[in-house]
This record gives sequence, C-alpha cells and structure tokens, in this order.
Amino acid sequence: MFFRTNKYQFDAKPERPDPIFAKMLQEPLGGQWGEISVMMTYLFQGWNCRGPQKYKDMILDIGTEEIAHVEMLATMIARLLETSPVEAQEDAAKNSAVGAILGGARLEDAILAGMNPQHAIVSGSGAMPADSVGYPWNAKYTIASGNLLADFRFNVTAESQGRLQVSRLYNLTEDQGVKRMLAYMIARDTMHQNQWLAAIEELQADGLEETPVPSNFPQDLEDQRVSYQFWNCSEGTESAGGRWAQGPTPDGKGQFEYLANPQPMSDDQGHLNPVDPRLYGTPKAPVPKSAAE
Amino acid sequence: MFFRTNKYQFDAKPERPDPIFAKMLQEPLGGQWGEISVMMTYLFQGWNCRGPQKYKDMILDIGTEEIAHVEMLATMIARLLETSPVEAQEDAAKNSAVGAILGGARLEDAILAGMNPQHAIVSGSGAMPADSVGYPWNAKYTIASGNLLADFRFNVTAESQGRLQVSRLYNLTEDQGVKRMLAYMIARDTMHQNQWLAAIEELQADGLEETPVPSNFPQDLEDQRVSYQFWNCSEGTESAGGRWAQGPTPDGKGQFEYLANPQPMSDDQGHLNPVDPRLYGTPKAPVPKSAAE
Amino acid sequence: MFFRTNKYQFDAKPERPDPIFAKMLQEPLGGQWGEISVMMTYLFQGWNCRGPQKYKDMILDIGTEEIAHVEMLATMIARLLETSPVEAQEDAAKNSAVGAILGGARLEDAILAGMNPQHAIVSGSGAMPADSVGYPWNAKYTIASGNLLADFRFNVTAESQGRLQVSRLYNLTEDQGVKRMLAYMIARDTMHQNQWLAAIEELQADGLEETPVPSNFPQDLEDQRVSYQFWNCSEGTESAGGRWAQGPTPDGKGQFEYLANPQPMSDDQGHLNPVDPRLYGTPKAPVPKSAAE
Amino acid sequence: MFFRTNKYQFDAKPERPDPIFAKMLQEPLGGQWGEISVMMTYLFQGWNCRGPQKYKDMILDIGTEEIAHVEMLATMIARLLETSPVEAQEDAAKNSAVGAILGGARLEDAILAGMNPQHAIVSGSGAMPADSVGYPWNAKYTIASGNLLADFRFNVTAESQGRLQVSRLYNLTEDQGVKRMLAYMIARDTMHQNQWLAAIEELQADGLEETPVPSNFPQDLEDQRVSYQFWNCSEGTESAGGRWAQGPTPDGKGQFEYLANPQPMSDDQGHLNPVDPRLYGTPKAPVPKSAAE
Amino acid sequence: MFFRTNKYQFDAKPERPDPIFAKMLQEPLGGQWGEISVMMTYLFQGWNCRGPQKYKDMILDIGTEEIAHVEMLATMIARLLETSPVEAQEDAAKNSAVGAILGGARLEDAILAGMNPQHAIVSGSGAMPADSVGYPWNAKYTIASGNLLADFRFNVTAESQGRLQVSRLYNLTEDQGVKRMLAYMIARDTMHQNQWLAAIEELQADGLEETPVPSNFPQDLEDQRVSYQFWNCSEGTESAGGRWAQGPTPDGKGQFEYLANPQPMSDDQGHLNPVDPRLYGTPKAPVPKSAAE
Amino acid sequence: MFFRTNKYQFDAKPERPDPIFAKMLQEPLGGQWGEISVMMTYLFQGWNCRGPQKYKDMILDIGTEEIAHVEMLATMIARLLETSPVEAQEDAAKNSAVGAILGGARLEDAILAGMNPQHAIVSGSGAMPADSVGYPWNAKYTIASGNLLADFRFNVTAESQGRLQVSRLYNLTEDQGVKRMLAYMIARDTMHQNQWLAAIEELQADGLEETPVPSNFPQDLEDQRVSYQFWNCSEGTESAGGRWAQGPTPDGKGQFEYLANPQPMSDDQGHLNPVDPRLYGTPKAPVPKSAAE
Repeated sequence: MFFRTNKYQFDAKPERPDPIFAKMLQEPLGGQWGEISVMMTYLFQGWNCRGPQKYKDMILDIGTEEIAHVEMLATMIARLLETSPVEAQEDAAKNSAVGAILGGARLEDAILAGMNPQHAIVSGSGAMPADSVGYPWNAKYTIASGNLLADFRFNVTAESQGRLQVSRLYNLTEDQGVKRMLAYMIARDTMHQNQWLAAIEELQADGLEETPVPSNFPQDLEDQRVSYQFWNCSEGTESAGGRWAQGPTPDGKGQFEYLANPQPMSDDQGHLNPVDPRLYGTPKAPVPKSAAE
Repeated sequence: MFFRTNKYQFDAKPERPDPIFAKMLQEPLGGQWGEISVMMTYLFQGWNCRGPQKYKDMILDIGTEEIAHVEMLATMIARLLETSPVEAQEDAAKNSAVGAILGGARLEDAILAGMNPQHAIVSGSGAMPADSVGYPWNAKYTIASGNLLADFRFNVTAESQGRLQVSRLYNLTEDQGVKRMLAYMIARDTMHQNQWLAAIEELQADGLEETPVPSNFPQDLEDQRVSYQFWNCSEGTESAGGRWAQGPTPDGKGQFEYLANPQPMSDDQGHLNPVDPRLYGTPKAPVPKSAAE
Repeated sequence: MFFRTNKYQFDAKPERPDPIFAKMLQEPLGGQWGEISVMMTYLFQGWNCRGPQKYKDMILDIGTEEIAHVEMLATMIARLLETSPVEAQEDAAKNSAVGAILGGARLEDAILAGMNPQHAIVSGSGAMPADSVGYPWNAKYTIASGNLLADFRFNVTAESQGRLQVSRLYNLTEDQGVKRMLAYMIARDTMHQNQWLAAIEELQADGLEETPVPSNFPQDLEDQRVSYQFWNCSEGTESAGGRWAQGPTPDGKGQFEYLANPQPMSDDQGHLNPVDPRLYGTPKAPVPKSAAE
Repeated sequence: MFFRTNKYQFDAKPERPDPIFAKMLQEPLGGQWGEISVMMTYLFQGWNCRGPQKYKDMILDIGTEEIAHVEMLATMIARLLETSPVEAQEDAAKNSAVGAILGGARLEDAILAGMNPQHAIVSGSGAMPADSVGYPWNAKYTIASGNLLADFRFNVTAESQGRLQVSRLYNLTEDQGVKRMLAYMIARDTMHQNQWLAAIEELQADGLEETPVPSNFPQDLEDQRVSYQFWNCSEGTESAGGRWAQGPTPDGKGQFEYLANPQPMSDDQGHLNPVDPRLYGTPKAPVPKSAAE
Repeated sequence: MFFRTNKYQFDAKPERPDPIFAKMLQEPLGGQWGEISVMMTYLFQGWNCRGPQKYKDMILDIGTEEIAHVEMLATMIARLLETSPVEAQEDAAKNSAVGAILGGARLEDAILAGMNPQHAIVSGSGAMPADSVGYPWNAKYTIASGNLLADFRFNVTAESQGRLQVSRLYNLTEDQGVKRMLAYMIARDTMHQNQWLAAIEELQADGLEETPVPSNFPQDLEDQRVSYQFWNCSEGTESAGGRWAQGPTPDGKGQFEYLANPQPMSDDQGHLNPVDPRLYGTPKAPVPKSAAE
Repeated sequence: MFFRTNKYQFDAKPERPDPIFAKMLQEPLGGQWGEISVMMTYLFQGWNCRGPQKYKDMILDIGTEEIAHVEMLATMIARLLETSPVEAQEDAAKNSAVGAILGGARLEDAILAGMNPQHAIVSGSGAMPADSVGYPWNAKYTIASGNLLADFRFNVTAESQGRLQVSRLYNLTEDQGVKRMLAYMIARDTMHQNQWLAAIEELQADGLEETPVPSNFPQDLEDQRVSYQFWNCSEGTESAGGRWAQGPTPDGKGQFEYLANPQPMSDDQGHLNPVDPRLYGTPKAPVPKSAAE
C-alpha cells in the first residue's frame, strides 16, 4: 500500500513558461524510456518477484521512488504551459535556447511556434502521459519476465537511454529552474545505472543466474555447433577485428569463432503444402458443396 | 543492398501440424522480443551507426542474419498450420505436449482447441507479424539511439529475453522438428548474448563510452549529492544488504550510500497557477466576449 | 439501414484556407472525444441495447445525427486545406488568430508553419480520421457495456469533454465561417449534455438502474466496512472538508466517513511461490532433462 | 513524493491456482476501465489540478489509494498463475466455476484450456499491464482535461464501468479468496461512485462549474436555435416519450423540444475545390515542370 | 446528413447462440478488412472527393450502404452472445461446426470453450468494434488519398480481402441463419468488387488517371533506366518465366526487362558524419561546458 | 537466408542537411504506404506462398529488393539530420523549398522550425521506423492472406499510394541529391505497379484465380438477387450514369442494375433478448444470491 507526502522529491519550478520545451519534456515523462516506463516496470517486477526478499525490496524501493519522478516532471510541464492571454509577454522569448524566438507565454504564439496542440485543446495546460510527438504511453514499455537477470539487463538499458535523453534535453534550455531539475534526474540516473549493474553482480554472486540467460536451460540441448560462431552476413570484414570474433567468450564457456563465408546449414527451401480448400488460398482446390452447406 | 539464397539457415520442418503451437510460436516471431524486433533493431542501429566501421559492419552482419531467423520461424508456423479437412487426422493428437488433446490437423478441431482464429480467417494458414495473442508487431520495439553503449545494453537484453522465451517454448512441444529448430535458435542467442557483452567490453576498451551513459555529459553538472545514494522508499530494510547499497560503485567513481529514511529535498508542493481563461479550466475566469468574437 | 441526404446539417464553409487550424480541428473530428467517438459509441450502444424501445430509439436518433457531425467537420477540414501554389496568398495571413503569421494558402508556407505533413503527403488535402497530433482514431474510444446507466454516464462525459474542446478551439480562430459551425456544434453539445442527464433521470425513474452501478449486485456481498469510507492516502487534510467526507452519501444508502490515518487491512505482504521450473524464473530450479526432450 | 508499506490494503490470496481466471482478472487490472486507468487518471488530474486545494488533495488521496489496488490485483494474478509441473493437480479442477473442467495447476493443461500464452512465455507466471485479451494498457485511458466537472463526470463513469466489470467477474469464480478481494474492490467502487457524485455536487455548490460544461463559454454565442432540440434522425417515435424530449432541461436554462421530422439547416452540399496540382489529386491538373525541378 | 430506417438491409438472426462463432464474426465487423473499415474508407473518400459528382455520389452511395452492414453484423453478434444461465442448454452444442463440442448457451461453458472474455466482462453480450482476437479497430484502416485511382485500387482490394474472409467463415458454421446473412454479404462483395473494377475503367475512360499512378508526374523526371526492369534479388530464376519479366508493360509505355544478376548502381556505402556533440552519440565529442550552462 | 552488399542500390546523399524534410521523408520510410510496409508485405507473402514457384520466387525477388529501399531512405534521413552546433549554417536555409526559411543545420533552429523532436531526443539524428508525424510503423500494414489475387490487388495499391506520396514529396525539396534518389524510387514504383498488374494477368491466365475473389466459393450459394445491383443509398442520381450502374460486369458474369430507391429486404428491426442476469445489463434481472456465492 502507498502513501504520498505533499512535498516533492525535488523542485519542479521553471523560471518562466515555455510551451515548446514543455512539448519536448513530455519525452522523459511519457516516452518509451521515460519515467512512467521505469515506474511501471519496476513496480511490476517487484510485485511479480519470486526471488529473495532483498531483491524484491530493492526493486520496490526504486519503483516507489520513480512515482515521485513522474510527479516532478508532470508538474514542471504544467508550469511550463502556464500561458496567459494578455500580460507580461515581453521577456518570454528571451530565456530558453529552444524557445528563443517564438515560444512564449501567449497561447496563440505558442501554437504557431509548434506547441503540442493537445496541450491546449485536450489537457488545458496540463501534462499528458504521452511523448514529445503526442504518442500515448503504452504498457509494452513495461518489462517483467520473471527472470531477474533478463530484467535487470533491461533496467540498465532503461536508465542508460533515459539518462541519454535527459542529457540531450539539458542543453536545449537555458531556464535555470528546468536545468536544476534535470541535473537532479541525471544524477539519479547515474545512481540507477550503477544500482542495476551492482544488482547484476549480486545475482551472479548469489548463484541465481548467469550468462547465457536462462542459465539452467541444459546447454547441451542447444545446437552447440553455432553457440559461439560469428556469422559474416554483411559484406566487409572489419567486424573480424572485434572482441566478439575471437578469444574467450564472456560467459567463460567457449571461444569466439569468425565465420567469414557463412552458408545455409539446411537444404530446406521453404516449400509449403496446400491447405484446407475452404480457406480459399492459392492454389485453389474444389470445395465440396456439401462442405459449404 | 541485399540478396537472398533459396536455402534456409536451418531446417524449419515440424513433424506434423499443430495449430496451437503455431499460435504460441508467433511470440518469438512477432512478439516484443521476437526475431522481427532484433532484425529491425540491428538494421536501424547499423544504418544509423556513426561509430568506427568495425561496429557498423558487425551490427549489419547480425542484422542481416536475423532476417533469416524471421524466415525460419515464419515458415515453421506456416507448416504447423497445414490443416486438412479430411484425411490423416488420427495421429494428429498424439505428438505435442500442448497439442495433445485437441490441437490436431482438422480446422474445426483446431479452432475449438484455441487456435488463433486469424490464422484461418486472415492469413489462410500463413504466419503473421504478430505475437502469441495476435497483437501486431510495432516499431516501438526497434531501439536505435545513436549511442552505442546504450544500444548494446538493449541488445544484450533483447537476446536474454529472446532466449528466455524460446527456452520456455522448447519444453512445451514434443515435435522433434520444432525442437531442433528451437535448439538452433537458442544456440544463436547464446552467441548473441556473448557477442553484445563482448562489444560492450570493446566499446569501453576503445574509450568510446563508459558508465554512466552518456559519459561525456559533464558529471559535475549533475546534482552530485544524490549520484550514488540508495533511497529506501518502500518499507523493509532487506535491500540494505545488497551490493547496490554499499561499497564502490561499478562505474568506479563513487561509493554507494544507503539512505534509510529518505525525505523530500524540496518544499515544492506542486501548486499551479491559473492559465488562459479561454481554456475553460478550473477555476474558471471570465472570458471577455471580445476575445470570443 | 441508413440513407443520406445531400444537404448538410449545417454549413461547413470557412472564409478562407487555414491549414494550421485544419490540423487543430482534427481533434474534434478524430480525437478521443471527437465526433467519430460519439457516433460509434451511440451506434454501438443502440445496436446492442436490450432495454425498452424508447431508449434504443433515442440512442439511435443521436447516433445517426452524429454521422452528420463527422461529415461537417471532415468537409470543413478539407476546405481549410485548399492550398494553392500561386495565386491569392496576400490576404491569407490576415484572417485567423492562429494562422496570422504563417498559416496561409501556399503549401510550402503551410508546412513550414506547422501544418500536419500528412495532410499533404497522405490525404492530399483531405480530412483524416485522426486527432490534432496525427494519432489515428481507435475503437477503444467506443464505449458500450450493456448497462445503460454506466454508459449514459460516459455519454455525459463525452459531451462535456467534447464541448470543452470545441469551446477552446472557438476562440483560436477569427474565421467567421468556422466560428459559425463551431457555435452550432457547441449548441448541440449543450443539448446532448442535457439529453443524457435527462436520460439518467429517466432510467432511475423507470427503476432500471441506480447508484451504485450495477444496482442489482447484492450489496450485502460487498465488504461493507469500506463502502462509504474516505481514505486519506495523500498527506494534507484539506480533503476532509469536502462533501465527500461527511454527511449522507448520494446513493442515499450510507454516511461518508473520513479515515484520517488509513492503515492496511491485511497482513498480506505479497510473498509469491516459485513456479514451474520450465519457465526459467528466479529463483531457478533444476529442469529435468527428461522434461526437455 | 511516495512511500510504500509492506502490507497490502487487503488480502490478495486465492485458494488455489486458476490460470483461466487469471486471464480474465487482467481486465480489472490492465483493461480500459481497470485499476491502472483510475490510478493514472486520478494522479494526473491531481498533479494538473489548478482548483482549490480541497479538490487537489482529495484527488491525490484516491489516486494514491488506487496504486494499492493495482498492487492487490497484480499479486492475485501472479498467485493464480502458480502452476506446477508435477504434484498436486488432482483437486485443481474442482474449485472455480470457470476453471472447472480444464483450468488447473499444470502448465500444459492451462495452456490447452485457454490460458493467456503470454502468462507463460512472456511474464513467466507474473501479472501484466494488459487486459483479458492481452491488449496492452495505454495512456489514452488517462483523462485529465483541466476542467474538473468534465473530469469528475469521467470519474463517475470509470467507477461505474469498473464496478460493473468486477461484479461480472465475481460470479464467475468459486474461489473464496478471490471473491473476498473482489468484494472489497466492489465496496471501494461503491464509495468512489458516491465520492465523485458528491464532488460534482460540491463543485456546483462552490460555483466552480455547472451544466453545460464549460459553463463560462458565453452561451449567447452558441447557435441557440438548436440548444434544446431533440432530433429524431432514426425512424420510430418511441423516443418522443422520454424525459429528454419534453419539459425543462436539467441545466434549468431551457425546455426540451422534440423535432419529429428534422431537416438540414444548410444548403451546403459539400462541394470541394481542386487543390495544389503538385498533390496529384483527382481531378489532376498539369504540374509545370519548372515546379518539379 | 443521414437518416436511419428501423428495418435492416437483411436478416441478422441466427438459429441459436454460439459465442465462439460470435468471436470469429468480429473479424468481418471490426477487423482490418471488416465492414467498419469499408464504411469509414468510403465515407472519407466521398467527403474528401474533389472529382466529378458522379464519382462523389457513387462513393457516398456505397459508404452509406456499408453502415447497414455494420449494423447487421453487430446485431448478429449480439444475438449469438445471448447466453442464459439455466435453461435450454441441452441442444446448444449440436448446431454449429465450430461450436459443436463446447460452444453453447451457458456462459461458463462458453468462456471455457474459448469465448472472447470481453464479450462477457466488457460488452455484456454486445458486439464490439474489434476483430476476432479482440484487437480494436483503428483508423489506419481508412484509406483516402485524394487520388481516385490509387483509392479505387484499394477499394477493390478491400472487397477482395473482405469476401475472402467471409467465405472462409461461411463454411465454419452450420447455423442457417448465420449462413443466409453471410451469403447476402458475399453477394454484395461480388457487386462491390465489380463496382470498383468498373469505376477504375471509367476513371481511365474519362481521362482522369492512368498507370502509373499518379499519371501526371512528368515521367521523364523519373530515373527511366529502371522503370521497367525486373531485379532478380532472390536466388532462383523461376521468376524469369512470368509475364512481369518480358513483353510490353501493362501501362503500354515500356517493355519488361529481366535483370538476372542485379548490381548496386551506386558506390555509396552509407558512411555517416558525426553530429552535434550535445546529442551524445557515438563517437562522442567534447561538449563545451559553456554549451551546457 | 540473406546477404548484404556494402554498396547501396542507389545514392542516398543530400546536398545538405534539412531536418524538416527529414521529418517528411519518414512517411515513405515508416508510414503506412512506406518501404517497410512493402518489404514486410512481400516477404511475408513470399514465405507464406503456397502457389507455383514462379510466383513465390517473384515475390521474394521484390521483397528482397525492398530491404535496399528501406536502407536508402534510412541513410538519407540520417544525413539530412546531420546538424552541427557552430559552423557553416549560413547557406543552410537556401536550398530546399520547404527548408527555405528556418530548416537549417543548427539544432536549435531545426527544432524551432518544426523538426521532429524525437530525431534529437530519441534517435540522436538517426532515422526511425515511424511516419512523418512520429507514429510508429506497425505490422497491420503487412498484408498476406494466402490468396494471391487478393494480395496482388493490395500490392498494386501499395505501389500506387507509395508512388503518389513520393511524387508529392519530390516537389517539396530543391535538394538535387534528394530529388535524384526520389526519382529513382518513383521509377521503381512505376515498375512495381506494372509488375503487379502483370502478375494479376498471369494469375488469371494460369487459371489460378479470377473475379470475384475467391473464385472457387460456389457462387450459387451467394444471395444472387443482389450480386450485381447498385444501391443508391445517398441522395442524388449522378451515380446512375457511371459504368458501375449499367452494362456487363467486369467479371463477365452479370449485368449491372441500378436500384434507384433501395429498400430494406428484411423485417428485422434488431430486437435483442435479455441475457444472463449476472452480466448486470439493462434491463436488470434478479441475481440469485446462490449464484453469487
């Protein structure tokens, strides 16, 4: 069960409205790699966790924290959208790199400058659970497989893509209030990348999982002729020089082999048989009228 | 530019039809972590790659190989769907764990047993780019950020989730033709997990990127008070015992700190101002009729 | 069965093209709360209606009317998109609040000014069943549950959100042709809010349904300890002063109670058991090789 | 900012696994009218709220509570999915109305009986943020318009549709653990229907909003000829007898009028002009080659 | 503007309930090639039509007819879903090929037999605008490009795919009421395939458009070296024997040429330059701290 | 199985960056009628093909070629996005019709001018599998029904819509590098329209299929009263003059008949019966408490 404090994890106050940047800031809120994605991913991983309690607790700690990040971003966006029809627009244009020319405090100007029209028509100057082009967040961004190593690898990715996107946004505004909040979020993403990398170490140290995931599929059942073979399917041999083409494999169980001239391992040419004539495929076959009645 | 051989990378021949298993096998074809996802992800990462040629070539090698995996799975599914209306149904029920009771070669039986109805109505016994519940593949499963470490972490995840799903399916059929192909795919996923882990090593050895991603965001600009702090937001202190709560951080730049009783760092309570009255929000404000005309 | 007259319910003629406003006007056409949504919702509610004929007839009356609203909006948008490459662009910029600076009659200017590019590339200056950011309409916006009170409540909502959005748009154009049509649609939304509120009264007067919906679920089977309790889960006690926290409940069956310090009613901490080892979850368990073969 | 207790708001323990019912229970978790929808809707309404604090606090109270409902359902589903490969399957089939024949504790049986295959392949016996046919939750289910009356009407709807769906499910299981939790959720929906109805009363008593929404659009600007007219567009006059066709309108501002034989109010027949020839529409027009170069 | 008669274009009465077939019949209602798709496609093509009135009128004739088809299918599905809890279930199983074993009139049985659970939980025995796997209809199925030949070709396709799907369904039921309605719809699809083929003839006879679409793009601007060349990119030369590889082209403007051994026409190898360092791509470049402030 | 050459089918080099045109060029890459759609459609049609080998080979030839088109467009877009923060921006604005005013080489300018923000935030100057408004490609654009005539008709459509869209884009840029590539693609679309039209001829010549599709549904089972009747459901009789309303039908099997005043052929008025009371529909019926327990 959850409780909410009134105070925010960190300030979410811009210096002034900037509807164009508000549109862009929807990406780390409701985009594929935004805060809603990690909030939902970690909560579902936590609730579904069947592993030792230290993992379950840790996952739910961070999942709960992420709700606060969603809260900060939503509030920041709502404030960036506080357009007013009459007063105080003179200095609106002065203060963000992106909003410099047109992105100001007047609604009409903001729309012309490329504001998301749904911020006016649909949400009435509120944040939306959507990304920077207005595509709604969807639950396919939530990953919880039941296998902790597979999922922690996803989590490292999510914190990497997330920190990358926020860093890109950081330079595109000159609003010091926005920058301070983004600097806070970038720092938390630093922590969370480290946290999941540490959790991967711990999982392996605890003997719970290892490469290749899932590690308790009996590896002698896989087709071991190709388990450590690099196939050169695209012209050019530059790839032969990489770490992935020679030497011991990271799982410690094999040696990379470079296959310069890969060939099909099968004579299968994909021939298919006809099917039930009542499916009216090609080639067609007579359908007994009795079958149709 | 691409060319296609007629022969398949590996055999895609089941012993006999099994429309129920065909439905399930759509997951590794057109599901979120299926072969279309990795095919599209690697091709887009390759085409968009601005890094050294050895990376670009390597990514396109594997991207090209994945088209062959899509081909194998699509063909296998089309063959599992080869129902026939009249003959040879006696032994249909005998040969797969999942298809044991009802999943046979007669179309009516297959539908009753839970076949995907679109395999009959829409594709006429062909494979579809959709997952095991019929949800169509979509391009949000394609990840290509321009930052290779962020993306390679995704790729390790994709190969982990993919191998996990195929391993789950492996035990749910008794058809030796299907099992042989899955064993081949599991082996390739073993390779590809190792390949991307090796590529991550190489990226770091080449000095191209490191943790935290992106590594050239000036870290002194982030809010370093919280860069290595674990926040205990969910009751229970089991998480305090993990690797993520103490000791040096994996990026080698800090020490984990466990914050047992985290508190808001802000007095912000999220108060918002009213906006343009013409947006008819709450509280409402008078709209000058002149504005409306 | 349906028939169509050639004349429109109301004029759909703008004074002049305005591709930017055309983009925004897609919201009440193909957005979540647009005319396609109410058309489809009412038609499906009507076709599925199992209640007395006066309701079924009424729902289909309005459902049929809504097709005419879709028609008006689609035509208005097609006309707002009538860009021309050469002539008569001088006064294009003069006549809408939003289109004032750039949104004119020349295709290139319109695109630069933020026209939806699909209005050029995909529909060739025609309306699209999509919203103001180009997201396609989808049938999840169609609500028909079989329970008329639940659905009429949705209908009141739809007419409220719809009238709100059209009112927002009304002030953002100065085109008198557009304004006249919007004023017509706002008036119909006034009617339709009243119509559904009256229908809710009628349903209750007819004894067909009441609060809480569904009213024939035996209420003594619900956990009546919490049926009228307000839980204060977010810090701050301002909510204690509202109508929802004290006095008789609107259904006439209870008294609101304010729970200032809510606590879990369960000792459940969400512990989960391991599952079938063949799902390769965490913790892992040995998979008998026999199971794999 | 948010904190989580370890204990649940209410028990989420079934008597025994039932993967078929787990599939169905996804509807109130991740369906259009499920708990994720109200959680997200209320949180976004709260964060975006610009009205008096008693409303903002109230909305966030219930938004925070709903996270606990998501938690209960997710956990219940994970437990219903605890299949095991070998032991203790004898009594599996005995204990739910829906699971009576096939829906048992053995994975193979469950799949044959119509279990969601993604519960095995994708989530490994965990809950998913998706509905009962596996369609992923998406953020279009989140409604927050900035106008509290429009939104509270949605909230009444959501609690009505939600209670309706849970009531339907209540009778389709015989598992007393599941029934107890559903009885709890039904009771909370009773409260929440009443809560939002009371909030609507309060909004109107506070003079913040009234019918028609938005009430501060100057009503003399709408086309008042049709503001209270019922149009009989579908054959049959049964609708003439309803409350919506006669007497004073619920907003207290008009009288319903029944228009038995509605006619177009316009001579507009929808004629469109040709557009820029470079869009290659029909009729086609010559494209100057200079334009193409 | 539209009006509705009370009578249906054709009977929509099954002999008895069959919830399994109801699920399958959702495909021609709300699937990609279902009646909602052609209704919306033709209406939007008609409203957007800028061509001669005979085309506009014809398109709107058929668009209006299609609403009646949606109506028939929705009603048929609602009737197939009329399950009852107690009486008259004995003969339920006897009367459809697909529903033969389990798909009967009792709700529990229907769910176990593979009924769409949303037909119970969400729509309460009503039709839904979704397909046979429950995926909601969406407006990307609506095609209206502004070019009539491009669109009429789509329309022929839609009537072909639609008739194909309904023919497949025709044999999968033994219910004579359902079969009669499907036989009616198949006949209308026969008409509509012919209608659109005739419209294509007429368009060309009227000189409005021809192959290649769009015919007024100056063909000497295209790269005419490859305008009529067949490229053999997939191994195997069987394709060399087809009509597409030799002889005059259907547009009457060229001769097919078979290119047995196609080669890249470019030396482009896809090399990309680095971009703005503030996007943190790979290779990374220093970001001046001044840029970040 | 597939292999990739390093060289491209054709040059993909613009004269200079133009992020606005890059956004628009996403339509033929990842839009509904873009290259990913035809690539996936042809590959799936080919893999699923059960017809004579000359068709299967031909389909896979073109499917394989289309991968190269995706490659060209993706690369072109990545190059159009090569913004730089400092140097060489003076002439950026000079060289495209659309990019003339603002669309230049500086990231900030590009965003202000209406660049897709995800090209910066998400892909870091790379192409995305999405359309010109950022909507992700999805697999519903892939059509493969198992009936070759139905599918070839789709293919003609796809090449028509595709050539139409690229022709529209051709005139909206002045960049000669972009124009050369588009001229190449337009030529290939000329070929491919002809190719599919020829394939339709061949299919019919081979006796594999004919109008109406599917041709082996026994036509005497359809309701032949309406097989060739044009219904005038929308007011206006202009449609009576078209080819579709008189004379022999294109399938050679009937005569068109024009029905000026169409009437329902049924007395069905859509009445529905009540259903299981446990679904809590309207009208409601008592639910035996025993049923609920």
